[in-house]
Amino acid sequence: MRNVVIIGVGLIGGSFALALREAGFDGAITGVSSPATIAEALRLGVVDRGAPLEEACAGADLIYLAQPISRIIDVLYHLNPCVPAGALVTDAGSTKHRIVSTAQEHLTRCRFLGGHPMAGKELRGVGAADALLFRDRPYVLCPSDPAELDTEFVGWLGKIGARVVVLGAEEHDRLVAFSSHLAQLASTALAATILESSPESTQVAGPGLVDSTRLALSGYELWRDIFATNPAAITEALTAYIGKLEHLRENLRNRELAAEFERAAGLARQIRGQADRA
Amino acid sequence: MRNVVIIGVGLIGGSFALALREAGFDGAITGVSSPATIAEALRLGVVDRGAPLEEACAGADLIYLAQPISRIIDVLYHLNPCVPAGALVTDAGSTKHRIVSTAQEHLTRCRFLGGHPMAGKELRGVGAADALLFRDRPYVLCPSDPAELDTEFVGWLGKIGARVVVLGAEEHDRLVAFSSHLAQLASTALAATILESSPESTQVAGPGLVDSTRLALSGYELWRDIFATNPAAITEALTAYIGKLEHLRENLRNRELAAEFERAAGLARQIRGQADRA
Repeated sequence: MRNVVIIGVGLIGGSFALALREAGFDGAITGVSSPATIAEALRLGVVDRGAPLEEACAGADLIYLAQPISRIIDVLYHLNPCVPAGALVTDAGSTKHRIVSTAQEHLTRCRFLGGHPMAGKELRGVGAADALLFRDRPYVLCPSDPAELDTEFVGWLGKIGARVVVLGAEEHDRLVAFSSHLAQLASTALAATILESSPESTQVAGPGLVDSTRLALSGYELWRDIFATNPAAITEALTAYIGKLEHLRENLRNRELAAEFERAAGLARQIRGQADRA
Repeated sequence: MRNVVIIGVGLIGGSFALALREAGFDGAITGVSSPATIAEALRLGVVDRGAPLEEACAGADLIYLAQPISRIIDVLYHLNPCVPAGALVTDAGSTKHRIVSTAQEHLTRCRFLGGHPMAGKELRGVGAADALLFRDRPYVLCPSDPAELDTEFVGWLGKIGARVVVLGAEEHDRLVAFSSHLAQLASTALAATILESSPESTQVAGPGLVDSTRLALSGYELWRDIFATNPAAITEALTAYIGKLEHLRENLRNRELAAEFERAAGLARQIRGQADRA
């Protein structure tokens, strides 16, 4: 692996480039992004050069797609003629089924391996890129065949400190519908409910509400593509959550609530235990 | 104000005692708690002495009730014969309507002023007591008559750095039903839903889910009394929240979601702005 191309040099793409360098990669890293982003990425030493898509992909060993989901899908429609037959294309999109099936249909000249690093920051853009972003974080890979994992790219994921988790694309989308997409909608709905039904409540807001509304700060533009490409699993998760809230409402004053609190605290501790081990 | 009695020397009662001392109070502070708690409170210098309820209240100028809600209500049933006529009784319970109405009915020999400091910590008990716990945090007071605010106690709240917010007892309970009780149930329901419907999702948990399940770590014993004494407002808040989630589910793929995200982010920023100013 000598020539790496990062398409979309933002927080994730830029962090992947920095992490590769930090882990000892000494090949070339080419960025494909807007002129302003490429200028900043060059200034920060994130990429070695910028180039248009076709020029960048000629001679590439690894092509890393790190744009929003809809842009990744657009690129996959048009990438096939540009890629060398020996290249590996991978992506970092937040949903996988639509991306993986688009790649299977349109990317016939080279290999594809869908991915999703479970890492992020409140800040976006190449200015926030961080060589340690993936360290000790899950990095989901969705191979169509387990043999696809036997690549130099997967070896580099280990070297940058990521914890590889292998899932089917549809399985991935269902799991993140609960762990990520439902958590986002629960936080957005909480903030929107308070604003609509009891805006004066902000004067008695405590630290718990600050935690519970952190995700509500997220911008919609990041989420539009996720809702568009994972609606069935998100609808299932929302329906399960609404059912649980109705159950809590019906049992507000009896011991059933004690059991729900105990189970919920167990899961919350489990998540933290994984974070601590990580 | 020379003689202060703290009934329930835990995190809140102990912090109030330490905050008074830090602010220059040089009268006597007597604790009423279990022998083990009094021993620890004496060791930590939180109180000057421990005493049984009746003995402690004789000669008290301020009696500060800092137990769980149901214990505060129990004490209010029995406190009247023990209190000097010139004393002020106040409390730090998390719901106010039931406590204030119990005090109005049973505490006929002295004044009562219901209170609720919007402060806390993950740790409990006198060992976690902190002289700075109330600093820059809202401290709700629920007077039956505005003249009740003209007390030395309210002056000390200012000296310990609390931000006094005056609300009616029922108004307080409705506002915290949304800002605190709904946030708790939303977090508990999220963790319980994942455990029940998609437990494998924990392997792809990110930092957002850690934030959103922090409240789910809370123990039920703290919440039983809150659900028992504020069920109507909590039911109203849950119903509004369920309605909002149904609205998000119905509009998952259209621009209505953009408007909900924008409104929710506005509220989340507003809460943070207050925290920053505080």
